[in-house]
Amino acid sequence: MQPETAPGGGRLRRPIWPAPDGRAVQVIDQRRLPHETVIVDLNTVDDVIHAIRSLMVRGAPLIGVSGAWGVWLAAQAAAAGGRGFDAIEEEARRLAAARPTAVNLRWAVECVLEAIRRSGDVGAAPGLARRAAEDIADAEAENCRRIGLHGLPIIQALARDRRPVRILTHCNAGWLACVEHGTATAPIYAAAAAGVELHVWVDETRPLNQGARLTAWELARGGIPHTVVADNTGGHLMQHGMVDLVIVGADRVTAAGDAANKIGTYLKALAARDTQVPFYVALPSSTFDWSVTDGLRQIPIEERDPDEVRFVDGWDGGAARRVRITPAESPAANYAFDVTPARLITGLITERGVCRADADDIRRLFPEK
Amino acid sequence: MQPETAPGGGRLRRPIWPAPDGRAVQVIDQRRLPHETVIVDLNTVDDVIHAIRSLMVRGAPLIGVSGAWGVWLAAQAAAAGGRGFDAIEEEARRLAAARPTAVNLRWAVECVLEAIRRSGDVGAAPGLARRAAEDIADAEAENCRRIGLHGLPIIQALARDRRPVRILTHCNAGWLACVEHGTATAPIYAAAAAGVELHVWVDETRPLNQGARLTAWELARGGIPHTVVADNTGGHLMQHGMVDLVIVGADRVTAAGDAANKIGTYLKALAARDTQVPFYVALPSSTFDWSVTDGLRQIPIEERDPDEVRFVDGWDGGAARRVRITPAESPAANYAFDVTPARLITGLITERGVCRADADDIRRLFPEK
Repeated sequence: MQPETAPGGGRLRRPIWPAPDGRAVQVIDQRRLPHETVIVDLNTVDDVIHAIRSLMVRGAPLIGVSGAWGVWLAAQAAAAGGRGFDAIEEEARRLAAARPTAVNLRWAVECVLEAIRRSGDVGAAPGLARRAAEDIADAEAENCRRIGLHGLPIIQALARDRRPVRILTHCNAGWLACVEHGTATAPIYAAAAAGVELHVWVDETRPLNQGARLTAWELARGGIPHTVVADNTGGHLMQHGMVDLVIVGADRVTAAGDAANKIGTYLKALAARDTQVPFYVALPSSTFDWSVTDGLRQIPIEERDPDEVRFVDGWDGGAARRVRITPAESPAANYAFDVTPARLITGLITERGVCRADADDIRRLFPEK
Repeated sequence: MQPETAPGGGRLRRPIWPAPDGRAVQVIDQRRLPHETVIVDLNTVDDVIHAIRSLMVRGAPLIGVSGAWGVWLAAQAAAAGGRGFDAIEEEARRLAAARPTAVNLRWAVECVLEAIRRSGDVGAAPGLARRAAEDIADAEAENCRRIGLHGLPIIQALARDRRPVRILTHCNAGWLACVEHGTATAPIYAAAAAGVELHVWVDETRPLNQGARLTAWELARGGIPHTVVADNTGGHLMQHGMVDLVIVGADRVTAAGDAANKIGTYLKALAARDTQVPFYVALPSSTFDWSVTDGLRQIPIEERDPDEVRFVDGWDGGAARRVRITPAESPAANYAFDVTPARLITGLITERGVCRADADDIRRLFPEK
């Protein structure tokens, strides 16, 4: 465990970076937040796969960047062991399969592979992979900054005298999930920086409580007023005019605008539609899956260990502790994502600007796809 | 702590009964389920108010019956202390105010008071109160049995060859919440008894996990196949055709059919409507509030201690344990109920039969109101 500072002594603002030794990757172990800030070294591809599968790192953009850095580790191992490109590609395939829903992972791994392949020299692969991974991380950070810029006017337009703009978000699509700024949080951070008064309703986000643990931690560190609520609460808040705007992230968005995101997002989108609250999805374009148009039928939904539902991780008396909440004999099911149909989405906030969640308007922003 | 048997040695099937000493009331401490079955003596009105407020007893019908037994305790104390009807009425007022949303509580307390008032003799009050409380408890049990009978054909109509009828429920509207059979569970138990194959999706029901703790415990004891899911999951299940029917209970239903129930019910009703899954509310007529027509504007929603959101109670290594899941500095809000508008409800299952959730059809079943 290391102190809560980034390499060089600055305040943490990224969840992943190359270790000072130039060989490993370092990440914040997000399973232990908000109770402990623990930095972990990932030394091998297996370490990266474990970090992704165990949710030590999570969030579509960060999973992608982690995969990119994983290819760097694979390239180092291949170069050191005198193995060829085949070995790196084999490891890349394993990395890309670590989680099925996140399209960024396959995309980022392929980007780094492509950069390596161009050289034709395994000895050059580690350096090329490192540069490609850094480029992807920096590009994701820049994309998130731009998502913030494009989302800012949406929040500014909702600002009224004498009360904060009240935003609801689900799960964690903050800088912990991305590389900097976050996706759903980028407009929030941009609005706070622009002096807009804000209050954020943070969905706890069962079963793994990414909202209660991670988004609340981020917002508290950023000085953004916020209140944690059970996932059941958002509909009531919207019915009573207590939410001006919903912004969520996404794990995969189809070319027609359907959004796969953390389980429960669909329920909030339904409530937003029923109560006329604008519902936005913020995403970098790497989250689009251009090959898919029908999100409900075509996006595979990951099923995770039912024990994530049966047990809750928390903090008691200065130590992490896991408690069981169900009867010992009762089974549980754990679907990790759901798909919000495009018809329920007011707009998509991307690094290129805001568009409607439909194929034509998405293509207007991304004509090359 | 006593063994898991009812007085007389039978299997527990009611959550409240008069103690064998003829002076106290005994209840199952529902906060400690499913991990421990603990029977607690309630000796005073304050004990009953504490049991209601702390959720040792919960569920609209049981809260009502608890209030009724509370008036019995007040009558015993008044008779023993040589005090008059005023003292009993003062205690009854305190009982009726213990929880704001449950209309049954005020109704049941008033019923027992009415029975006492008729005698004009404080010495006779304890006996009259006991009989009135017993009558209310038996009537609630009979109402729940009839709810089961009326709901059974709805489930039978959904039975198909070679697969179970898949029912989703939220919170606990089982016998623990009622007196016997439950409300939402009554048709489920009736269908199981009639040989219909069933599978129940149990919403965990944050923040107090009444589904994961209590409904799962009840169904496991009753041998009903079930799976616990995070509250976020129901929309996904309905989108994918994995739910045939939603049945929930209610804490208060307006004369026009709006239903106040555990927070999050509205979100499931929205998903059911969006996916064409039938959504039923099961309730005894004591849950109707005939004085109210606009549930969203007129039903006060209880706000409970935010620590119920920030902390989770569970079981670890043979002991009950409470863990914090949020950052220490992050506030939380805890709205206990929401209102599902009548337009989202397929029907109401009452002890008199099934009706649509609208003023006319409700009045058809209850013409005397």
